Amino acid sequence: MHHIISIKELEVEDINRLLDKARLIQEKGFKRRTLEGKLVALLFFEPSTRTRMSFSAALSRLGGDVITVDSVEGSSISKGETLADTIRVVSSYVDAIVLRHPKEGAARLAANFSTVPVINAGDGAGQHPSQTLLDLYTIRENMPLDNIDVGLLGDLRYGRTSHSLSYALSNYNVRIHTIAPKSLEMPAVIIEEMAERGVELIQHDSLTDVINELDVLYVTRIQRERFPDSASYARVAHSYRITPEVLKDVKDNLILMHPLPRAGEIDPAVDKLPYAKYFRQAENGVPVRMAMLEEVIL
Amino acid sequence: MHHIISIKELEVEDINRLLDKARLIQEKGFKRRTLEGKLVALLFFEPSTRTRMSFSAALSRLGGDVITVDSVEGSSISKGETLADTIRVVSSYVDAIVLRHPKEGAARLAANFSTVPVINAGDGAGQHPSQTLLDLYTIRENMPLDNIDVGLLGDLRYGRTSHSLSYALSNYNVRIHTIAPKSLEMPAVIIEEMAERGVELIQHDSLTDVINELDVLYVTRIQRERFPDSASYARVAHSYRITPEVLKDVKDNLILMHPLPRAGEIDPAVDKLPYAKYFRQAENGVPVRMAMLEEVIL
Amino acid sequence: MHHIISIKELEVEDINRLLDKARLIQEKGFKRRTLEGKLVALLFFEPSTRTRMSFSAALSRLGGDVITVDSVEGSSISKGETLADTIRVVSSYVDAIVLRHPKEGAARLAANFSTVPVINAGDGAGQHPSQTLLDLYTIRENMPLDNIDVGLLGDLRYGRTSHSLSYALSNYNVRIHTIAPKSLEMPAVIIEEMAERGVELIQHDSLTDVINELDVLYVTRIQRERFPDSASYARVAHSYRITPEVLKDVKDNLILMHPLPRAGEIDPAVDKLPYAKYFRQAENGVPVRMAMLEEVIL
Repeated sequence: MHHIISIKELEVEDINRLLDKARLIQEKGFKRRTLEGKLVALLFFEPSTRTRMSFSAALSRLGGDVITVDSVEGSSISKGETLADTIRVVSSYVDAIVLRHPKEGAARLAANFSTVPVINAGDGAGQHPSQTLLDLYTIRENMPLDNIDVGLLGDLRYGRTSHSLSYALSNYNVRIHTIAPKSLEMPAVIIEEMAERGVELIQHDSLTDVINELDVLYVTRIQRERFPDSASYARVAHSYRITPEVLKDVKDNLILMHPLPRAGEIDPAVDKLPYAKYFRQAENGVPVRMAMLEEVIL
Repeated sequence: MHHIISIKELEVEDINRLLDKARLIQEKGFKRRTLEGKLVALLFFEPSTRTRMSFSAALSRLGGDVITVDSVEGSSISKGETLADTIRVVSSYVDAIVLRHPKEGAARLAANFSTVPVINAGDGAGQHPSQTLLDLYTIRENMPLDNIDVGLLGDLRYGRTSHSLSYALSNYNVRIHTIAPKSLEMPAVIIEEMAERGVELIQHDSLTDVINELDVLYVTRIQRERFPDSASYARVAHSYRITPEVLKDVKDNLILMHPLPRAGEIDPAVDKLPYAKYFRQAENGVPVRMAMLEEVIL
Repeated sequence: MHHIISIKELEVEDINRLLDKARLIQEKGFKRRTLEGKLVALLFFEPSTRTRMSFSAALSRLGGDVITVDSVEGSSISKGETLADTIRVVSSYVDAIVLRHPKEGAARLAANFSTVPVINAGDGAGQHPSQTLLDLYTIRENMPLDNIDVGLLGDLRYGRTSHSLSYALSNYNVRIHTIAPKSLEMPAVIIEEMAERGVELIQHDSLTDVINELDVLYVTRIQRERFPDSASYARVAHSYRITPEVLKDVKDNLILMHPLPRAGEIDPAVDKLPYAKYFRQAENGVPVRMAMLEEVIL
């Protein structure tokens, strides 16, 4: 039995195999019922519609069944039960557990107590490997993961998506460009690890400095709460907002990604441009999660 | 691909075909698995147990699978995502969307952005076509939709059920009788449209004036909040309450309908009388919604 | 059509048949799809993750489908609908109803209005027959239900699990030992009924007096709210806490049970001891509920 807890634990061969399987599933139009008779618990101890629906759709497309706990309210957790006990019980009901939890490390703990495979669907500031895999998948369906320039824009300090994606990209021949306000720069520990892994990582102050060199621009949300006052927030939010104007001289094959939901980071006028891949990216969540579920259950 | 957004957009042929299909489904005891392998998202951005369960049951009876979002809480909406973005993403996961939303016009907007068919399951003061179709279905299984007198009782100003039903009935040879307190009368715009459509619509102050002429009495809720004080509410609520006494001289074939849930509008002592069709009406929601789902997906 | 409302109404033959069927299901690895095409409503008007997930898993394992209402919020109940009306409507959608409700007697009322079988999944201080059946099942898979000593520890006054289990055990040759603080002793009415049924029931003040004689120790939660002050609560909670030390001279074949979730009643250090059967007990909920669902639906 194996779990999928963190993208850092997956070998590049594992990643490639998962992505290949996802592509095959997508090409075949989702017509496979490999998980018929299998039952998976979606334990979502914090809300995440997109991830939950996407996993739920993935299961259904494979013929499997789902049981769901949607929040702490309505769960035994509110009666003071430990996560360990919940996992021990639930894992006796099902064939796999998909866990979303507000606390970093929760998925690892769950894996220790579960008698069935656990997939981490996000644990606080920690890992969210299915998001990272669908990000990689989306890049790879547009260009080879080789000799490309990937820009990460937004809150790179607290945003786990950009951290996980950096680790995943370090398996390939990729240059990473970070574009973040001073107070939200990529943590030093990740920058160091990237160096150790031989990844070229270049920090930029301004998006305009680098946007025309990029093959991929990965935009993330900047939360107002991170700023001391709304004026400084507004200044950053404005300078990082993607509009058709910002994109006027970019490479033809640039792809623009976003983990969604977006707030104001990407102007809806951009949606019609060929660069916009964020809805396709969300769509790719289903085949990628189908591949992950098959991987751990079969 | 087509959507079902408003009863006003359906031709009478469409309506009759849907009702015929629903009757066939009901007669055959729901034994059809035409939606096996199909996946439908129930997006309920406001609570509505009956409608959600009824659509969910309809899907299951057809062999289809469901993914559900139950409220704004627990959804990306609470992170500020637009409905357009939610719909674009969710429609990439599923084969159809059933949408319940507090804002009028939401279903139309969703249809504009969705890549799969959308069924409106109620959008605020707007439309709720599946309710209207099951209302028509229930009348039609008791009498021909021809040369009948239909009374609409209760809050006819804000109650969308009575508006939609009026539009639907205007396709047939029907006289409509409205019985409502002064402040909750049918809006002038609807009365005018009924006239344009050649429907005889007669307004009454009192239920006793007209009840003995009716073939159908459709009762709706009157909400306390619509009245300036509880005395005036109590007066109206009392005079509009259906009891066995009120029904003592009605036509033998009168049918009594209510979209449910009821509060005090219909005395439970009426439940045993042959006129009471409101539970049958609710039951009819399943075959009617099965017909609608088949219509848009197949 | 029959309902399962209370363990007191089941004959010992019914109980044994259900337990035998559950064992058969478990031995065969849950491979039976006897409820394919069947639809069951899980109406949970108070939260209970474990029971809901366990019933949901049971249904899926039998090939059946589920529609769920999870709480009063999000249900028509919040619009003032009576339980009777809800049940009448929902029973027209499905093939069976599993009901959890905060009010004692709710399941009986539901059975009176339902047109399909109702299983009581707990109604307030009332009954919770699936819990009792899985408790019996767990004892029986470890030892014959004959000439055994069963200890009930904790809040025996308000805890419905220990009441129901006592009634169920009265069908067999069993001695019951109650261990509870003075204010939380087993109600006199149950003690009298046990005597009428010929069951030997011995009341103990202290766990140490009796633990070494027991074949089964059934631990339940003691809630802080039952005590006038936290000092008296702490004293009781401490003296009733199960640790490896407390178990050092028990019978070799003692089994330790708990309906879960536990708070501090059982030290996690006990989990590794051979006596610990509470996770197995929870696991047994699935085959037992599969047997119950088959029993009422087929």
